[in-house]
Amino acid sequence: MKTHWIAVDWGTTNFRAFLLQDHQQVAKIAHPCGLLSLTKETFASTLGQHLAPWLQEYGALPIVMAGMVGSQQGWQEVPYVTAPAGAQNLMAHAYSVSTQWGSPAWIVPGVNNLSAFGQPDVMRGEEVQLLGLHALHPGTEHYAVLPGTHSKHAHLCHGEITHFSTFMTGELFSLLSQHSLLGRALPEQTDDDGAFLAGVEAARHGAPFSHLIFSARTRRLNGEIPPQHVHSYLSGLLVGHELAVIPQETRAWVVGSPSLTARYQLAANALQIQLHAANGDDCFLRGMTALRTQLKDTI
Amino acid sequence: MKTHWIAVDWGTTNFRAFLLQDHQQVAKIAHPCGLLSLTKETFASTLGQHLAPWLQEYGALPIVMAGMVGSQQGWQEVPYVTAPAGAQNLMAHAYSVSTQWGSPAWIVPGVNNLSAFGQPDVMRGEEVQLLGLHALHPGTEHYAVLPGTHSKHAHLCHGEITHFSTFMTGELFSLLSQHSLLGRALPEQTDDDGAFLAGVEAARHGAPFSHLIFSARTRRLNGEIPPQHVHSYLSGLLVGHELAVIPQETRAWVVGSPSLTARYQLAANALQIQLHAANGDDCFLRGMTALRTQLKDTI
Repeated sequence: MKTHWIAVDWGTTNFRAFLLQDHQQVAKIAHPCGLLSLTKETFASTLGQHLAPWLQEYGALPIVMAGMVGSQQGWQEVPYVTAPAGAQNLMAHAYSVSTQWGSPAWIVPGVNNLSAFGQPDVMRGEEVQLLGLHALHPGTEHYAVLPGTHSKHAHLCHGEITHFSTFMTGELFSLLSQHSLLGRALPEQTDDDGAFLAGVEAARHGAPFSHLIFSARTRRLNGEIPPQHVHSYLSGLLVGHELAVIPQETRAWVVGSPSLTARYQLAANALQIQLHAANGDDCFLRGMTALRTQLKDTI
Repeated sequence: MKTHWIAVDWGTTNFRAFLLQDHQQVAKIAHPCGLLSLTKETFASTLGQHLAPWLQEYGALPIVMAGMVGSQQGWQEVPYVTAPAGAQNLMAHAYSVSTQWGSPAWIVPGVNNLSAFGQPDVMRGEEVQLLGLHALHPGTEHYAVLPGTHSKHAHLCHGEITHFSTFMTGELFSLLSQHSLLGRALPEQTDDDGAFLAGVEAARHGAPFSHLIFSARTRRLNGEIPPQHVHSYLSGLLVGHELAVIPQETRAWVVGSPSLTARYQLAANALQIQLHAANGDDCFLRGMTALRTQLKDTI
């Protein structure tokens, strides 16, 4: 088995590739060439072009890819694996793609399930971070929050994703701050923890969302929230609404960039939830390594 | 007391005026000259210009105005009256404006309160329809739903507005259908009751809103909702989320245009809520009449 290999995170807007030796990162590249900037025919050549320096140096290294690259709009649609799903199950359903330069390459499938709230739900890419979280912090049970445009909350049992739910927190924040009445005619915004926590507090009691968010207007009108902190308040409402589904005293993980996990920890603290942070990139690489390990007999 | 008078509904985008004899409508005009198209200095002249034909025929008729004309961005900011608020209380706080042509004129204040969910809340204009609902359908208690961009749910006790909450149903529908991932790359949309009711059903069990709406993507992906009915499904999610706050078996009113009230009745029926329709314009005129009656001793 070659010790060098390449892990690729290929999403809607970005392409990131990591050159690894076993599970140690050797080099990294990133390009803004996500799905939106590509057609089906250009995935293979784009990959070859970006990886050329590594391939020239190390030969036809194996490549494992995850993310929206496996969606309908991606290189090749790879059907979802239904939860419960672990590394073994996922790699058994990985899609093998051929490369002109002879690298063995796979696209990892996403996961689907019926959420705890009875809604059909899907993920593509986050499953890798979840596997990595378990690899970095082994345990019997994990509740993990992956904040983002479409945040994911997932349960792991012995490292398998048993069920999960999506929350459109980041996208709703963008919509409401940029396109709604709530964000209209605001001065330049500055981050404010007080306004953020006021939003978290307002959201904790389970008011219906479409009612709750109107308070970003009324609290600004009545002077409770200064006009330059409306975005912070709105962010608190959204994060609070998302975290309010987690029972108090729960010990959970938040996986992401340090700035984002810190924001979620601030909210969680106000909600009496114990939220431990894990670095999103570390989890991704460990998750990819766990998936690659499944290929031992193949390459 | 002159028997002819004028009721004006002056909102953000529209201006509507009604010539009445006692509570009977004699004539009506409408212009797209709401707040957004005016500056503070042009309200008086705009009013005079639009009402000129009636004023020439009947002289300096009294004018009662309601809606966003009394907001910060309107002709004159009229402070909110805090609930409980009835016709007497509202007219005691109406703002008297002077007109160059000698008409006595008033702007009706809006109402504020702390909602049933602990959020500060406001209305301007809807209070008139609520008073009218009570005048048309007298009773001790009313629960009224006023659907719209910002829907209002209000309790009336002996014709007084005791408390109310706003739901940003219409605005969220616009945002999600026009600007979010959920509305992206859809074919031309057609209304479909089945998809609408599927949305209502999904929303009835109280799933967190930011999770619930993701089902407009997943149910389309898995073929449960045809691509041309995604807007209907999304509308069902939003109306269902709004109506889910009303306990089953409640007898309530829905006040608005016939097409909108029919839509809400369809959803309410699926939720085992008894929703009786009242025409929004009828309620407005009866409410304005109730307010005008308070001026008996003045004019």
